[in-house]
Amino acid sequence: MLKVMKGRNIDVQIKMTANLLGANELLAKKNQRLFAEKGALVINLMSSPGAGKTTVLERTIEQLAGRINMSVIEGDLYTDQDAVRIGNKGIGVVQINTEGACHLDAGMVEKAYGQLPSADIELLFIENVGNLVCPAEFDLGEDFRVVVLSTAEGNDKPMKYPLIFRQARAVILNKIDLLPYTDFDLGQFREDLDRINPLAEVFEVSGRTGEGIDNWIEWLLKEVEKKKSAVKSY
Amino acid sequence: MLKVMKGRNIDVQIKMTANLLGANELLAKKNQRLFAEKGALVINLMSSPGAGKTTVLERTIEQLAGRINMSVIEGDLYTDQDAVRIGNKGIGVVQINTEGACHLDAGMVEKAYGQLPSADIELLFIENVGNLVCPAEFDLGEDFRVVVLSTAEGNDKPMKYPLIFRQARAVILNKIDLLPYTDFDLGQFREDLDRINPLAEVFEVSGRTGEGIDNWIEWLLKEVEKKKSAVKSY
Repeated sequence: MLKVMKGRNIDVQIKMTANLLGANELLAKKNQRLFAEKGALVINLMSSPGAGKTTVLERTIEQLAGRINMSVIEGDLYTDQDAVRIGNKGIGVVQINTEGACHLDAGMVEKAYGQLPSADIELLFIENVGNLVCPAEFDLGEDFRVVVLSTAEGNDKPMKYPLIFRQARAVILNKIDLLPYTDFDLGQFREDLDRINPLAEVFEVSGRTGEGIDNWIEWLLKEVEKKKSAVKSY
Repeated sequence: MLKVMKGRNIDVQIKMTANLLGANELLAKKNQRLFAEKGALVINLMSSPGAGKTTVLERTIEQLAGRINMSVIEGDLYTDQDAVRIGNKGIGVVQINTEGACHLDAGMVEKAYGQLPSADIELLFIENVGNLVCPAEFDLGEDFRVVVLSTAEGNDKPMKYPLIFRQARAVILNKIDLLPYTDFDLGQFREDLDRINPLAEVFEVSGRTGEGIDNWIEWLLKEVEKKKSAVKSY
């Protein structure tokens, strides 16, 4: 026997969320103007806990060292472990601790951006809290979103968390080195993602071994250049 | 340079959450009384997306078939994929679709419980939405909570999501078969968990291969018996 019940139980929750989102939208637009003035490409990086956002960022910093000026804003509930890892790579990083909240919001990012050491940032990553639900609802003023999914999480995630995958400009399929040891169905994943978001770029990488990172870097550098040209022509 | 900023940006969010939690607490207490009357052991099963809650449940159903009467309430944003998997194992299951909300609440569970086919449930699993943050804040009236963590997620998760690990009666470390292919530090995981929640039972299992499931089942059966004795003596 299988029954399916739909709908949120507490209607008030929807209204409250709507109010919060309205306030956030205004601050996100403010961030967007600020980022546009400076010409920095800003990416909101999202995933489940443990999909490998920080490891992908570490690899990205290594590849881009000496080529472009990159900074990171780290979001986490309580710890600064990820910011320490990023700081060890020698670039500017600010940690936001949400103290239990399941996502970053535009106001937190505005404050953190003001704390970053360099004025000439060309590429800014905002690593959101590990979560496939809440972060998708909050615009931070970013240029676009990238979602990291690990092969260990299973290929059903785009269908189960469609909002976050629909909004992504690119999806990084991480831990591709674990593929032989999991039941992850690459064909089904590609098919589902294509249904939800046919325009998404997909990069199959391993943050651990470095496999596939070069394709991601090549694409990223093109996006940084596009943003610069857009700012100049504006 | 590393700076750490603390605190939620939107104070109103805290007050709103407090109100929602207050309403939920009342309904959770109602569920608790209902479950106590029936004598069913009720477990709130939580994890990140893709940690393997449903696979662990499938293995559990296989092991307990013909031994005790078990049912499942499935929580998911939109799909009924997990409920279909559980239903295929031949036990009663009700799917709750939260329509975007990142956790189950006590009201949803009350309604779903009323839809379950069997009146003589001895063990009820409530599989929460895949998320290490929001579900921890909402009591469903369960007897206790179990958290599933996958070795592919990394050993830093108890320190990064302390609330959900602190509240768990047991932690299932799943995908133990992937251990040789990851950087998961088992010693560090045990040490961190011991600091956060020294009383938690830990089960190292593989939902995929079945390794370690027998220890989990043995413990589970004892907990079902304990609950029955408690109800009888009451």
